[in-house]
Amino acid sequence: MDMRRLVGGNFARLRQAKGLTQEDVEARSGFSQQYISGLERGQRNPTIITLYELAQALGVSHVELITPQNDET
Amino acid sequence: MDMRRLVGGNFARLRQAKGLTQEDVEARSGFSQQYISGLERGQRNPTIITLYELAQALGVSHVELITPQNDET
Repeated sequence: MDMRRLVGGNFARLRQAKGLTQEDVEARSGFSQQYISGLERGQRNPTIITLYELAQALGVSHVELITPQNDET
Repeated sequence: MDMRRLVGGNFARLRQAKGLTQEDVEARSGFSQQYISGLERGQRNPTIITLYELAQALGVSHVELITPQNDET
């Protein structure tokens, strides 16, 4: 399983579901728009602590960020 | 939430439930007994790719490794 694509895809989906832009996430967290962009493209390999902080930035559970969707299993 | 303690505690619990020692995990994976010991004591901050490899080493889902139990929420 490609964990980077899994987490990146989940992050993009959950961010959009909240009606947030990458810039919005930057403004409410310590993550730059550039970092978020790379994450969503499957180019980042965050640690579990960063995963938790990313979930906090979106207001979701870290478990949601790492759980495969139907088309990702 | 202390992610290192969460994942470390889950790893120890799931490892013991499988009847495996830390040495058994070392023998069936690329992780040293020393790494596993530190992980279980909440001293490691693995990336999501390493989290997946740790789950593979135990034969569990990576989601199980990162999901809070009742007494950890």
